[in-house]
Amino acid sequence: MTNRVHNFSAGPGALPLPVLEQAQQDLVDFKGSGLSLMESSHRWPMYDEVHNQCISDISNLLGLSDDYQVVFMGGGARAQFALVPMNLLGDGTAAYVTTGRWAEGGYSEACKIGKAVEIYNSGESGHNHVPQAGELNVPRDSAYLHYTSNNTIYGTQFRHIPETGDTPLICDMSSDILSRPIDASRFALIYAGAQKNMGPSGVTCVIIRKDMLERCPAGIPETFSYKNMAGKNSLLNTPPVFPIYMVGLVARHLLGLGGLEAVAAINDRKADLLYSTIDNSSGFFRGHARRDSRSCMNVTFTLPTNELEAAFVAESEEAGMRGLKGHRSVGGLRASIYNGVPLAAVEALVALMKDFQDRRA
Amino acid sequence: MTNRVHNFSAGPGALPLPVLEQAQQDLVDFKGSGLSLMESSHRWPMYDEVHNQCISDISNLLGLSDDYQVVFMGGGARAQFALVPMNLLGDGTAAYVTTGRWAEGGYSEACKIGKAVEIYNSGESGHNHVPQAGELNVPRDSAYLHYTSNNTIYGTQFRHIPETGDTPLICDMSSDILSRPIDASRFALIYAGAQKNMGPSGVTCVIIRKDMLERCPAGIPETFSYKNMAGKNSLLNTPPVFPIYMVGLVARHLLGLGGLEAVAAINDRKADLLYSTIDNSSGFFRGHARRDSRSCMNVTFTLPTNELEAAFVAESEEAGMRGLKGHRSVGGLRASIYNGVPLAAVEALVALMKDFQDRRA
Repeated sequence: MTNRVHNFSAGPGALPLPVLEQAQQDLVDFKGSGLSLMESSHRWPMYDEVHNQCISDISNLLGLSDDYQVVFMGGGARAQFALVPMNLLGDGTAAYVTTGRWAEGGYSEACKIGKAVEIYNSGESGHNHVPQAGELNVPRDSAYLHYTSNNTIYGTQFRHIPETGDTPLICDMSSDILSRPIDASRFALIYAGAQKNMGPSGVTCVIIRKDMLERCPAGIPETFSYKNMAGKNSLLNTPPVFPIYMVGLVARHLLGLGGLEAVAAINDRKADLLYSTIDNSSGFFRGHARRDSRSCMNVTFTLPTNELEAAFVAESEEAGMRGLKGHRSVGGLRASIYNGVPLAAVEALVALMKDFQDRRA
Repeated sequence: MTNRVHNFSAGPGALPLPVLEQAQQDLVDFKGSGLSLMESSHRWPMYDEVHNQCISDISNLLGLSDDYQVVFMGGGARAQFALVPMNLLGDGTAAYVTTGRWAEGGYSEACKIGKAVEIYNSGESGHNHVPQAGELNVPRDSAYLHYTSNNTIYGTQFRHIPETGDTPLICDMSSDILSRPIDASRFALIYAGAQKNMGPSGVTCVIIRKDMLERCPAGIPETFSYKNMAGKNSLLNTPPVFPIYMVGLVARHLLGLGGLEAVAAINDRKADLLYSTIDNSSGFFRGHARRDSRSCMNVTFTLPTNELEAAFVAESEEAGMRGLKGHRSVGGLRASIYNGVPLAAVEALVALMKDFQDRRA
């Protein structure tokens, strides 16, 4: 693939090339079966194996104990904004940490379903930071604490897991799941749309501690219930077969790289390259995120003027890079460097940044 | 593809081979873009074009007027069982026609959300038929009438569209949408999981008459609201990109065949071949469905004994056929002959049926 572009899309994001090549090879005739996996009943062994291997590989990558179950659902992480409180809020009050647009979305959906309070909001600073360890005061009787580990738009990321005592901890990990090791045992529930680090869009991964299933009310619609979906191993109804298969290929690929420690080492190197280029630019490039809150997934930065930013984006496109324009709510530039973005892409970007600064500063 | 099997899966079902081959060709490098469509932001023109072309092709196939909007959602048709009443029931009472397992599922979800009555139930006959024209009594003040046009498990299908006067008509068309022309203007809402005739699993197509959007309550979760999803052209959040792309390829393929009249002619020929083989077998093969209710999509039949049925399934597998075992709740055999199943597959099946009868009757 000599003509492959450097893809910095914020999502759906870049996928590992070997994964795409495998999918291409399998597409018409899956492993000599004489049909595409997309044409297989979800009740047939050929799909069953894909489904269960995917769950097992995700569990291995994240080091999940038997206390946890991996569930696949549709509707995107945004559907989870509602499904979390529908299943787990009950008559209690949930605590929400608002560190960006999607965190806010989770909070506002919870307010439609039941009682929720916002215990932190970084909006006044343009969401340029996240709380540091020990900074959150979680009301003792909270039904759960909900936070967003990585804020795609603003380029901020939690570097620690909030301490919540006995309060169940729930995390929207859509944009950094599988990018680094995490202590999954600290969480009651993790959810993530697949389309950043896990695979293509069309499937949401929910990792739930099994004791939480007892909270799910019986009267909610069957496909909205974590308990029903977990009880049927995500096969209550037809699952999104191809997206799950792709997530399985990605998980396999990450295991082949050596697991999440190895993946994080590569991701850290990519992020360090970009942030050091920003920091060594004498203020020509300026990071949006506060240093203690910098994301290893989305690097947000500005140039001295809008004109220079537009010129930089234009040059990057000519140089075979895609997706560097920042989100309209923040402006500037954003380089999303998910698992699927190779080091070479970041090296190319950094080279352009230095060259551009030499010519235009 | 010399080794392609004859795939009679009830769902996910067979896809047209040219569609799979196109998807394979596009997979790693989409139209010379240097990336996979799965790696494209859903806000980029390259996806936009796929998305809107798919909507336009579905609209053309079904002859939709500007009064209708095509919306893509996740969670399968089973999520629609709940979303229909959440959006459209209000304080009224909905009427449900129970002609099988999925129809029953729709009714039971509606009962969780609000008031619903079952005005027809074919359960006593093992769901071997559907109501005939004029047979339904729709209570005049119904919020809507909901029915299932084709019953996958039992092999029955409505050959007419129920008359409901001013009552909005809602149809789960999951297993026969795009298999024949329909008068879409008779419906207030049609929904269908894609994985039978439209494409792979992972996306649900909702076709809604725009005046119905005014019924959608403001307070429901944003991704559950037809009004919100329609208002954002199904791009409120990241859509299931690859499944929608595949639906687009299928729609294009069907237009290339000459549209739904041409598609129906092929489907009728396949169904006629199977039903005439059953009818001319002197009772060796017996259809499950009553003749006036026979489905052109799922042909359900039995053999004189369970042993003969098992022997037939075994021989069919050896002859390169897949998926002929009937659903456990009906038993016997089931040949699902969706759009993606070529005439040659049905000819092979019919040849085996005749040969098997000659040898074993």
